[in-house]
Amino acid sequence: MSAIPSWRVGATVGARTPALAPDAEAQPGLRADGRLGVHYALTLARGEDAALKAALIGLEQTVELPRALLEADLAERMTGRVEAVCQTGSRAARVTLSYPIGAIGADLPQCLNLLFGNISLKPGIRIVGIDWPAALLDAFGGPGHGASGLRELTGAHGRPLLCTALKPMGLTARELARRCEAFARGGIDIIKDDHGLADQPAAPFAERLARCREAVERANAGAGTRALYFPNVTAPARELPHRLDAAKAAGCRGVLISPWLVGLDTLRFIRDDYGLAMLAHPALTGSLFGRGAGMAPELVLGDLFRLAGADAVIYPNTGGRFDFSGAVCARLNRHLRRPLGALRASLPTPAGGMSVQSAAEWARRYGPDTMLLIGGSLYAQGDLAAGAAALRRAVEEAAP
Amino acid sequence: MSAIPSWRVGATVGARTPALAPDAEAQPGLRADGRLGVHYALTLARGEDAALKAALIGLEQTVELPRALLEADLAERMTGRVEAVCQTGSRAARVTLSYPIGAIGADLPQCLNLLFGNISLKPGIRIVGIDWPAALLDAFGGPGHGASGLRELTGAHGRPLLCTALKPMGLTARELARRCEAFARGGIDIIKDDHGLADQPAAPFAERLARCREAVERANAGAGTRALYFPNVTAPARELPHRLDAAKAAGCRGVLISPWLVGLDTLRFIRDDYGLAMLAHPALTGSLFGRGAGMAPELVLGDLFRLAGADAVIYPNTGGRFDFSGAVCARLNRHLRRPLGALRASLPTPAGGMSVQSAAEWARRYGPDTMLLIGGSLYAQGDLAAGAAALRRAVEEAAP
Repeated sequence: MSAIPSWRVGATVGARTPALAPDAEAQPGLRADGRLGVHYALTLARGEDAALKAALIGLEQTVELPRALLEADLAERMTGRVEAVCQTGSRAARVTLSYPIGAIGADLPQCLNLLFGNISLKPGIRIVGIDWPAALLDAFGGPGHGASGLRELTGAHGRPLLCTALKPMGLTARELARRCEAFARGGIDIIKDDHGLADQPAAPFAERLARCREAVERANAGAGTRALYFPNVTAPARELPHRLDAAKAAGCRGVLISPWLVGLDTLRFIRDDYGLAMLAHPALTGSLFGRGAGMAPELVLGDLFRLAGADAVIYPNTGGRFDFSGAVCARLNRHLRRPLGALRASLPTPAGGMSVQSAAEWARRYGPDTMLLIGGSLYAQGDLAAGAAALRRAVEEAAP
Repeated sequence: MSAIPSWRVGATVGARTPALAPDAEAQPGLRADGRLGVHYALTLARGEDAALKAALIGLEQTVELPRALLEADLAERMTGRVEAVCQTGSRAARVTLSYPIGAIGADLPQCLNLLFGNISLKPGIRIVGIDWPAALLDAFGGPGHGASGLRELTGAHGRPLLCTALKPMGLTARELARRCEAFARGGIDIIKDDHGLADQPAAPFAERLARCREAVERANAGAGTRALYFPNVTAPARELPHRLDAAKAAGCRGVLISPWLVGLDTLRFIRDDYGLAMLAHPALTGSLFGRGAGMAPELVLGDLFRLAGADAVIYPNTGGRFDFSGAVCARLNRHLRRPLGALRASLPTPAGGMSVQSAAEWARRYGPDTMLLIGGSLYAQGDLAAGAAALRRAVEEAAP
């Protein structure tokens, strides 16, 4: 916050506000005093007071009652405490609140609710930072495999992993499996279903799973590669365990999942009950990333996806057909990789409009602890195995 | 769309576009030709072409490949078809696309993905209307109880149902149960957990469930009322079935759930596997309701929540501490109640800042097929049972 032109820098509110932010001494993203710290960027309506808005957030996200109806002890114990109010413009402020873990317990959905449940319905509130207490990191647990686990599974070391998507929907399972085999032979590490492949009639889940697993095994046996096929298990609540059982029975080591379509905590369930690696897709999260309201992408696709157990996280790379900036991508990479308690690092997986030609450049720019997801550009090569092999060579040559 | 000032009204794109929108003859919200119709309001960047943007949406949400890489037959079968492009300003357009059911299958998460998965990450796209094919209405099924089922369960007829929330978090289960009993004695029909009550140490789920159920039974037996207690079952994926089992075993007839925290399809799971009535909470949906991007509230909290099985849907009433307009609330009421295939109607449940004093006015304005959720204002009465009774009388007197 130090770079922000401020009128009331560090103005603090409330009797028990510590003089120094408790996270100042700790790892970035960690908080040492056992509370959950949340930093908000507020856009203020005409005449709206930043400190008051901050205090109302602290009530809305916990007790949902006006302060006047609360006993003093309960208000102190349970509500969000305003720790800093920093006016950053005539209609803008940064504020920091902290919450007791007792307002969350150990449930991830309730953590999400406390972070942005009701206030998602209010204007001018954007979460721009979260400082996690050890208790929540322990409760949520993070990746079961992580970046290093994915390297073990694929045998890919010292370079970015390569990923592609089976598409388009509308092809038969047999046709998708043929593509899967070609990609595996060419040296792609992880071949995932396009995230729109669910259980449609053209390529039903069970048949697609069987054929693609068989295809990837055949390619690995023939070419000496160690490609993995990750089926998309994003599914109705009742079906999800069956698809996971099937994926595991078929010998899959990992799956693709869209957390926002099925609930973020589904990741923990898959990690704990199935032990499968997970590549997480950002479908439906985009509405959170507005300028004046929502949550910063590095907190949703970075912190939250990682805490819930994503071993790798797909995000729309800058310069592609979506509009994440280079700065956002850099922050996302950092949040997925940075030391955070005892959590394993996740593998940032930029996607969306990168090309075979630009892959080496992205490999150099993002470094080896990355997975490059390239779809359309590979399909444009015509010969998929040759295209994949060219991509693999380019990325290997770019490795340090 | 007829009220929109337009420069190119009804300009259509593509060879197979029907002259008349297929939904013109059918029930509003239904589509007779078996395809899913989606209406978008687009905000255009400088120089951006509405028809091209529409066509790209049709590719992005299905095949995720450029048109040039698709065989003609597959493109025709699987991609979103642009049916209408209607320029509504120099930088604004309304466009209509239709999608084949084959791109969805029968999975609700994939339907959500096709509606707004990837394009949530793109700027200037807002879904403002959906026309459902019978196949999806049948697949998703809608409320298991619906508005009339909730009337049966509560015995409340000819007037709006009354609902309140147990709060604040931080009270013990015993204290919450005492409040529950008072509300039931006063004549509240449905007493739900505050949606932030999960499984925190102050009032663990199991103890809260047991004590509140007991309290409501005691009140019903004493006062001759038929109040119901709806525990909040929003929970981690692994815990959810256990909390539902417990709720059912304790004799609950319904539950509170926040679909966006646990995945929308969870509603269908609860309906089909547990038969419990559901009151759905809008936590975390608010980011979708931006002006220029997202989805209209009546489609998310109306159509989608209802299709997935919500028997009643909480929304932030106009004039309260959130900012839904009166027009949005009216549309929400309509989408929850309107005839839609064979779906049962859901009960609109306005909330957020209504008072005991204003309840009669809201009852008159919204009509009897409504549930009024009043929290803070009841707590401000001091004597909860007396406050509830006053509320009940006011609403009964306002009934037609």
